[in-house]
Amino acid sequence: MSDAAGRRRARGGGGAARRAARSAVSFDTAKYIERNIPNYEVLTEEALEIIERNAETLLEEIGVNFVNNPGACALWKEAGADVQGERVHIPRGLARKLCETAPSRFTQHARNPDRNVEIGGKSLVLAPVYGPPFVRDMAGGRRYATMADFRKFVKLGYMSKWLHHSGGTVCEPTDVAVNKRHLDMLQAHMTLSDKPFMGSVTEPSRAQDSVEMCEILFGRDFVQQNTVMTSLINVNSPLTFDDVMMGALEVYAKNNQACILSPFIVGGAMAPVSVVGTLTQVLAEVLAGIAYAQLVRPGAPVIFGAFVTSIDMNSGAPTFGTPEASQILYGAGQLARRMGLPFRSGGGLCGSKLPDAQAAYETTHTLNAALLGGVNFMLHACGWLEGGLVSSFEKFVMDADQLGTLHKMAAGVMADENAQAMDAIREVGPGGHYLGCAHTQANFQDAFWKTQLFDYKPFETWDEDGARDTMTLAAERVERLLADYQQPMLDPAINEALAGYVARKKASMPDSFT
Amino acid sequence: MSDAAGRRRARGGGGAARRAARSAVSFDTAKYIERNIPNYEVLTEEALEIIERNAETLLEEIGVNFVNNPGACALWKEAGADVQGERVHIPRGLARKLCETAPSRFTQHARNPDRNVEIGGKSLVLAPVYGPPFVRDMAGGRRYATMADFRKFVKLGYMSKWLHHSGGTVCEPTDVAVNKRHLDMLQAHMTLSDKPFMGSVTEPSRAQDSVEMCEILFGRDFVQQNTVMTSLINVNSPLTFDDVMMGALEVYAKNNQACILSPFIVGGAMAPVSVVGTLTQVLAEVLAGIAYAQLVRPGAPVIFGAFVTSIDMNSGAPTFGTPEASQILYGAGQLARRMGLPFRSGGGLCGSKLPDAQAAYETTHTLNAALLGGVNFMLHACGWLEGGLVSSFEKFVMDADQLGTLHKMAAGVMADENAQAMDAIREVGPGGHYLGCAHTQANFQDAFWKTQLFDYKPFETWDEDGARDTMTLAAERVERLLADYQQPMLDPAINEALAGYVARKKASMPDSFT
Repeated sequence: MSDAAGRRRARGGGGAARRAARSAVSFDTAKYIERNIPNYEVLTEEALEIIERNAETLLEEIGVNFVNNPGACALWKEAGADVQGERVHIPRGLARKLCETAPSRFTQHARNPDRNVEIGGKSLVLAPVYGPPFVRDMAGGRRYATMADFRKFVKLGYMSKWLHHSGGTVCEPTDVAVNKRHLDMLQAHMTLSDKPFMGSVTEPSRAQDSVEMCEILFGRDFVQQNTVMTSLINVNSPLTFDDVMMGALEVYAKNNQACILSPFIVGGAMAPVSVVGTLTQVLAEVLAGIAYAQLVRPGAPVIFGAFVTSIDMNSGAPTFGTPEASQILYGAGQLARRMGLPFRSGGGLCGSKLPDAQAAYETTHTLNAALLGGVNFMLHACGWLEGGLVSSFEKFVMDADQLGTLHKMAAGVMADENAQAMDAIREVGPGGHYLGCAHTQANFQDAFWKTQLFDYKPFETWDEDGARDTMTLAAERVERLLADYQQPMLDPAINEALAGYVARKKASMPDSFT
Repeated sequence: MSDAAGRRRARGGGGAARRAARSAVSFDTAKYIERNIPNYEVLTEEALEIIERNAETLLEEIGVNFVNNPGACALWKEAGADVQGERVHIPRGLARKLCETAPSRFTQHARNPDRNVEIGGKSLVLAPVYGPPFVRDMAGGRRYATMADFRKFVKLGYMSKWLHHSGGTVCEPTDVAVNKRHLDMLQAHMTLSDKPFMGSVTEPSRAQDSVEMCEILFGRDFVQQNTVMTSLINVNSPLTFDDVMMGALEVYAKNNQACILSPFIVGGAMAPVSVVGTLTQVLAEVLAGIAYAQLVRPGAPVIFGAFVTSIDMNSGAPTFGTPEASQILYGAGQLARRMGLPFRSGGGLCGSKLPDAQAAYETTHTLNAALLGGVNFMLHACGWLEGGLVSSFEKFVMDADQLGTLHKMAAGVMADENAQAMDAIREVGPGGHYLGCAHTQANFQDAFWKTQLFDYKPFETWDEDGARDTMTLAAERVERLLADYQQPMLDPAINEALAGYVARKKASMPDSFT
């Protein structure tokens, strides 16, 4: 596969593309967000320095475990760490020093270059829910996710204007063998969407498969010279790096592909119950993880991740959209910016079983915190339900609609002559109204964010139309979008090569469900 | 009625009080919020200066109308304004100069002094929904509000831990004559709750009644020397001050009672479609209104109000919880702080017909903006539905529960030795867990905000329990709270005096429904 063939893009010429352009259905995708607003910061300089000092103390004094990974331990030893069995004690300052080779921002390429995203700086890239073994919709209720569900979510993501990224495991296709489902998932992202996507991390060999499939899609040289996947490497908090996740990280780093180093923390269980204690542990873990990625390949693109929830101390259930989770998000953002690293956190997180008011309260708290807290890559931006156990079709389109508000908010406030609107106020005067004035007519099209989902009708009309709640409206929107879906163009040779790769790989091993 | 009798408080001695203290039902009210977090600001210094300069230009060049109010026009003329009929042109700088006598913060007293609130500075006082002619609950649907509904909302407000204020027209009791309902409403706030409340503004004479009823409740001297009501004076935007609202303002200012000067704006209808244009008009209106209050009585307590929504340009419907509304809130907060005035905005605003996901998305956007934007007095903090046409029982308790998250967020992040939790991290080490460690045991009770409403149960348990959504849980909580309600103690002599006042006033005039 030549680079030229591999990088041929879907957009532009071709009868199908022209037919798509004429169609009433628009699949526009907004550019990733570039914030024109300040970040919100809750930690004082003093608190930040305490956390940074304590994190170094943890790394040196307690250390971190690299489990079943003699190669990692050898690299650390060579770099100057004190390695005792699997325990790596990192001298004060070493990890931070190693992190300096990580880029402060990078481009993740999509097969459609219009969909490329910049990750870092003032950017915010939105990606859908990741990981749930179940799906839910109004018609079918809650059930194990299948590959058919997976494909529907990829289609919905492709059609979501405010979603920049196709994501990764939008749900776990439980009807496909564990050792093969990554192939089907990647093929779906590559063929049903043209947005950027994530690679597999459940085995180093599956990370390697992800790289190889990208080489088919983008061309081998292109992949080695550019970042075409951003993948999710969870840290086993507290302070533990397992060989599966690190094995995947090693594959991606060696191939110049991006990894999110993300402590996965339910506060009070995997970290202390206090905000500053949790942030200290998060920072230590991220420092160690990113430093290791830089040991594998200096300059490998990485993201400072923080997935932190609080806990209901009565039941032990993780809780979402809480003030403590927002405080940790804000604080982690400050720590990431002080390291000059892209930052991942947030998402439409909630604990509710249904896409109801609880879900929306919880989700909106975190979406707002992520916007103001400087998140650069927001996984789970739409579709997350029930603490991440469920991908919800209705919530996917509900959240995806809300993501438009983040774009508008991030654009900030214009104060030019048109925005000052002095002529309008003069024209209307005391007691008048603005609906018909020249300034309103000239500006109303773009003045306000517009929903594609919510109901603004008068009560009587709404009532006559069936008094539908938001979930019902969302279910109708899901059906409509899936009916309107049109596959983005892809070079048939690439399509066949991908299918061939998947078929060969699947035939090469028996099904395994572990 | 002596001051001593009038100020006798419900709490303390008495058999009923002791019985209440022994009861399992707790009616604790949290102290008003004192922020330990920074404000979020979206406007640059340059934009702020443009707005302030343009607002002065509007006041001087266009002026404002004081309708049917020769007394106000005379006061303005005497103060140096150029008055042409009802149009008052205010020379550049005059209004701002007059505003300087307004206090930067004040105490609003409650009959229970534990419930006094500070309004201004870093405080945030939360008050319930105001004004809807309809109510809605799951059992009864949407219907005109009655005095029985009103009393239920006052009881729910009294029992809401995170609500500091009993509010005013929590719904319009449409079964009582318009010229008499303020008497019943005030009596309900005074006798069914011991939190601070608002006075009537629908006629100057009704404001006078409000003052007189407060003199019964608090004692005449106490009222003259202290602020016991905060009342809502809407500006008829654009740039118009009607005689009814100004008449009420005059009564309150003369009696040292607080008024919120609040432009009521649907952006694009009563103000320009741009954020900066709207803020310019808001500032001009507030400057004129507060300056006028200071002309009536220098030092009268006032609040810089901004009730601003955006508009759906397709239907003309007002929209809530939008990014533009948040931007205006943030900007208005900056303008208020530059004037050194308390700031009113925000609320659990939404356009949804039901307390569903749309309601919660919209509500949460505004609650967050109000917290971070420095609001000091938040009307409509709970119970608002359908663009303010409906007071919802379920949404009242849903929002009231969420207000707890604002308290926790506002407390900020501790970084003392306990919060650093280094011993906990040392104790647990890599791969361990924190649930049983000493630090967790010592801190978990207060570590995390706790809901009184949301469901955190495992899916199976929740499903067996009836798979209830948030609205259903809220309906059950409303019933439970109303069943548990216990009236706060009030001196029987005051109770009788209030009832006598209401009866005499009602008998003195025929019913009027206009």
